[in-house]
Amino acid sequence: MTLAVGVIGTGVMGAEHARLLRSSTSGAHLAAVCDADESRAKAAAQGAAVFTDAHALIASASVQAVVIASPDATHAEYALACLAAGKPVLCEKPIAATAAEGLAIVQAEAALGRRLVTVGFMRRFDPAYVEMHSARTSGRIGNAVLLHNIHRNLSAPDWFTGAMAVTNSFVHEIDISRWLLGSEMVTARVTSAPGGDPMMVTMQSDKGEIVSTEVHMNAGYGYHVHAQMVGRLGTVEMAAPTRVLTNLAATQSFDFPPNWVPRFTEAYRLQMQAWVDATLAGRTVGASAWDGYVTTAIAEQIVDGMTSGGQITLTFPLARPALYA
Amino acid sequence: MTLAVGVIGTGVMGAEHARLLRSSTSGAHLAAVCDADESRAKAAAQGAAVFTDAHALIASASVQAVVIASPDATHAEYALACLAAGKPVLCEKPIAATAAEGLAIVQAEAALGRRLVTVGFMRRFDPAYVEMHSARTSGRIGNAVLLHNIHRNLSAPDWFTGAMAVTNSFVHEIDISRWLLGSEMVTARVTSAPGGDPMMVTMQSDKGEIVSTEVHMNAGYGYHVHAQMVGRLGTVEMAAPTRVLTNLAATQSFDFPPNWVPRFTEAYRLQMQAWVDATLAGRTVGASAWDGYVTTAIAEQIVDGMTSGGQITLTFPLARPALYA
Amino acid sequence: MTLAVGVIGTGVMGAEHARLLRSSTSGAHLAAVCDADESRAKAAAQGAAVFTDAHALIASASVQAVVIASPDATHAEYALACLAAGKPVLCEKPIAATAAEGLAIVQAEAALGRRLVTVGFMRRFDPAYVEMHSARTSGRIGNAVLLHNIHRNLSAPDWFTGAMAVTNSFVHEIDISRWLLGSEMVTARVTSAPGGDPMMVTMQSDKGEIVSTEVHMNAGYGYHVHAQMVGRLGTVEMAAPTRVLTNLAATQSFDFPPNWVPRFTEAYRLQMQAWVDATLAGRTVGASAWDGYVTTAIAEQIVDGMTSGGQITLTFPLARPALYA
Amino acid sequence: MTLAVGVIGTGVMGAEHARLLRSSTSGAHLAAVCDADESRAKAAAQGAAVFTDAHALIASASVQAVVIASPDATHAEYALACLAAGKPVLCEKPIAATAAEGLAIVQAEAALGRRLVTVGFMRRFDPAYVEMHSARTSGRIGNAVLLHNIHRNLSAPDWFTGAMAVTNSFVHEIDISRWLLGSEMVTARVTSAPGGDPMMVTMQSDKGEIVSTEVHMNAGYGYHVHAQMVGRLGTVEMAAPTRVLTNLAATQSFDFPPNWVPRFTEAYRLQMQAWVDATLAGRTVGASAWDGYVTTAIAEQIVDGMTSGGQITLTFPLARPALYA
Repeated sequence: MTLAVGVIGTGVMGAEHARLLRSSTSGAHLAAVCDADESRAKAAAQGAAVFTDAHALIASASVQAVVIASPDATHAEYALACLAAGKPVLCEKPIAATAAEGLAIVQAEAALGRRLVTVGFMRRFDPAYVEMHSARTSGRIGNAVLLHNIHRNLSAPDWFTGAMAVTNSFVHEIDISRWLLGSEMVTARVTSAPGGDPMMVTMQSDKGEIVSTEVHMNAGYGYHVHAQMVGRLGTVEMAAPTRVLTNLAATQSFDFPPNWVPRFTEAYRLQMQAWVDATLAGRTVGASAWDGYVTTAIAEQIVDGMTSGGQITLTFPLARPALYA
Repeated sequence: MTLAVGVIGTGVMGAEHARLLRSSTSGAHLAAVCDADESRAKAAAQGAAVFTDAHALIASASVQAVVIASPDATHAEYALACLAAGKPVLCEKPIAATAAEGLAIVQAEAALGRRLVTVGFMRRFDPAYVEMHSARTSGRIGNAVLLHNIHRNLSAPDWFTGAMAVTNSFVHEIDISRWLLGSEMVTARVTSAPGGDPMMVTMQSDKGEIVSTEVHMNAGYGYHVHAQMVGRLGTVEMAAPTRVLTNLAATQSFDFPPNWVPRFTEAYRLQMQAWVDATLAGRTVGASAWDGYVTTAIAEQIVDGMTSGGQITLTFPLARPALYA
Repeated sequence: MTLAVGVIGTGVMGAEHARLLRSSTSGAHLAAVCDADESRAKAAAQGAAVFTDAHALIASASVQAVVIASPDATHAEYALACLAAGKPVLCEKPIAATAAEGLAIVQAEAALGRRLVTVGFMRRFDPAYVEMHSARTSGRIGNAVLLHNIHRNLSAPDWFTGAMAVTNSFVHEIDISRWLLGSEMVTARVTSAPGGDPMMVTMQSDKGEIVSTEVHMNAGYGYHVHAQMVGRLGTVEMAAPTRVLTNLAATQSFDFPPNWVPRFTEAYRLQMQAWVDATLAGRTVGASAWDGYVTTAIAEQIVDGMTSGGQITLTFPLARPALYA
Repeated sequence: MTLAVGVIGTGVMGAEHARLLRSSTSGAHLAAVCDADESRAKAAAQGAAVFTDAHALIASASVQAVVIASPDATHAEYALACLAAGKPVLCEKPIAATAAEGLAIVQAEAALGRRLVTVGFMRRFDPAYVEMHSARTSGRIGNAVLLHNIHRNLSAPDWFTGAMAVTNSFVHEIDISRWLLGSEMVTARVTSAPGGDPMMVTMQSDKGEIVSTEVHMNAGYGYHVHAQMVGRLGTVEMAAPTRVLTNLAATQSFDFPPNWVPRFTEAYRLQMQAWVDATLAGRTVGASAWDGYVTTAIAEQIVDGMTSGGQITLTFPLARPALYA
């Protein structure tokens, strides 16, 4: 028997999760989908049960585990419902629209006494990031001292603000930096170019490591994520993100994707497989509710403090519960 | 219901195929394994049925499709048995130990009138080769005129002969060249370095394309496969086979794997998934019995003619049957 | 007739400048060298006149132009003497040990009403930086918005302080950033890793461009300088600093040099040739006295303000004289 | 005093040699130029003496050394005149239009008993080739066994034949292969794509090393020269021929030059400087008359034999004279 998974939300990400469960994941099957737009839900279901009420899907006896890919504002409500139902849940980032809501999930899970929540920070499963992580934990590059991140989107709509760049894009950099370094961030500072884009965000961790990130919503040429970690002995960085090189029309080149989907297709697949494997084994993997909460809290504090241009001291009202040790 | 697959042979490749079926393939499960060494079979089975007689596995009602990964000398016998049983089969390369045996499979399948055999030339599923193939079929690089292949193994035992290099390693280059170019090879010529290794093999296709291949069994530094296809407008080639770069100890570097397994892990997984998907849909994918036969026949003729150093005219006693059009 | 050049100081850099003038520069010859250590001077002279008094060399009728490569503390004194003698001078960086001394040179040259001083910021002649500069001035990458610099030394002695890293190494980044962007820096901020090394220095220009620089004195693996300029349309960055790649012992690699000399050999040669050509034509090239002063002043203000960790507002008591427009 | 050099022929290459002597070479000056087209000669002379008779230039007391850059058919005549006059000569490749003429130069120089002739195979001074050469002679990659060369031109006129590709372009590959390997070629074989372009030429040396070369006159995308040498321990190859990478319009790219001039600018400068230095020291550098003769002889025999498609046994009527040991 394979794990019966229900997917809430069938927009771009939800449809992709449903596809992975239908055709690219071992040990699981797509049991149900839910969307307020029933026709969209049916298209993603391809024969699985269709719900228009997320709580009904969560409560359904035919659903053993849940993927949340609905609008951000609903994440906390559905994640809490999964906890109440005792069902493992893979929640798309962010864990919640506010740090306060994220904290509520942490507290509910801590009260439950066992971990059921994974936040979908899929980069932790990206092979390049995994190799970088391993270069540090193996001791190969020595103790980490500095991490350079670059996050570039092709372009953003006019109404896209610097605050949105932090809460939508930079959150990925917060999570992956914490994971790569195994550290907690304690200060942050933002310097913006004219018009607010790009920004350089400089964070420093509890171990003193510096995290320097370019957040660029209108890079103009494509979607491009890069990272280089600097240790006391050397560095490790992502290679050119391509499998082939083309010599054509006076240049040698490779192509950048227009958005994150082609870049992280493999990471999403590996995340889903790892989550299914862990769920079947009664474990969790990936970013925890605590990771999701902290990332949201850091983003929130950076947004609050970024207009000043000064140093932002990051604080968390709750110590890390033992459940997330 | 998922496809019930039986794996014959549980050496390195058979164990890997069993693992893929158990834990990384959607829509299939490992139903049975077979090995003369029963304890090795049990280790790979992890709960699936265990056979020590391949014909019993093929005949078993609980097996819907078969993977052959037993010694080369047995491939033809088991493939013919699968055809007789009407069961889809993924046969590790080579399809048979001799061209004559390969031809017998082609004739049996042609007589059956439907295709059940896939030969495991997994490179056709490697993302880099797939992108190269697409660069030609899309017209992006113009009509192909030349293909450079490099096949390097770290080292080979003393008893490894040039003939073995052709039948074990160069066969991959024959198959992938035919597939990349969409052509048939018509001549070949071998030039060997002192001691017989490396060799340069120059083939030419029915369309006049030149295929130039370094076959190197003792490259000394690692396992390395590279290809560059040259078209009338430009070229496409594999990028550096790595996801990260390390700066350490006075160099920037990346690592080569010691053998083909890490290099083609993803290709094997994608091949298995594609074969399962196709089998469930009543189709075949990948290299056909005809491809397997032709590749074996070319290798055999090159081995026969290589000591002369002259030009080898490649011939096939049978025209391509309509089944493989 | 070729330009008669005298070189003051025959340490590492002075000996290299003497060598360039003797054997790798068209239109000039090494006429004289000066060093307090007469035997070292003779070794560098290889037949040219030898002085132990720099002022005597500057005054000598057989010297038409001067290269200053003596200790930093003497730069201002000799540069002023060259101005007084009306002789063109290529002064190794820094122009002076203090901003005040640098300012005195600017004022003396402005009073003279013609430019005779070039400061040896050789990176402006490095082919990679020249191509990056051209990518901006041609409009190819759009208006610049961000510049990432990396400056890594293999290692530094124990007594090497963060202030020295700024005045010895980071000054190169200040100069090249001003030149690449065509902008003046107005603010700076320093974030240091534990122990003070590496540092991230974030500057912002009068046009709002962000300059983000890693200054790393103990990078551990080699000497490595990198830059990437980000424009509104795209980016331009240095390629891997190597001409060959080696596959050996399980890796593909290239070597980093142990220090700046091999990295910038070509830049030093091109700078010398350009300076000789310009001098013969009655012009100046490269970094001016004003550039040298501003760079020293910025470094000085960063050193003064870096312990606070706060934002440093950069100020210059003198407006840019018309001579340097 | 600097070496007085006369340049015969002021077409593209002659004008470039004149420019190097005027403005980029230490220890030499442009004393005279010669061209049947006097106005073109004057343009290149920029004040140097102008001749329209090459023999008059060679005989002139104001010319100490000669550069031959006139049409190929005149090379032998002028080189012999230089030998007769006892003047060092840098002769553009080929040394002569025919092997017989080349042999006459070898015999004249051998009779003279001292070497005065350098053939302008400038690749021997290209930094990338020099590093590759050193990777072999240092023992770093072990004994060489195979050399891959790629020679691609953007495009060639319709009347450009395969024979011309051999005598104009492939000669560079012959010379550099002999120099990189330190070997003599003994057999050759040509395989041509439809229409005759590209060709794969497989040569084998007296030590058994294989030299495999793509000669491609209409590569379509730019001028591109590449080489990889394979040794028993590993390989060394040219890195991407660029100093900067650009991210723009959905790609990362660098540019190929349209022809050989930008690619080998530095090699031409270094060759001229090395030739001037050697001439002043009474030595020769670079490819000798023997190298020039052998390369022409090999090209000639390949052209004679290439239509057969069979193996060409390379022969030289004269053993290497002791002068070229």
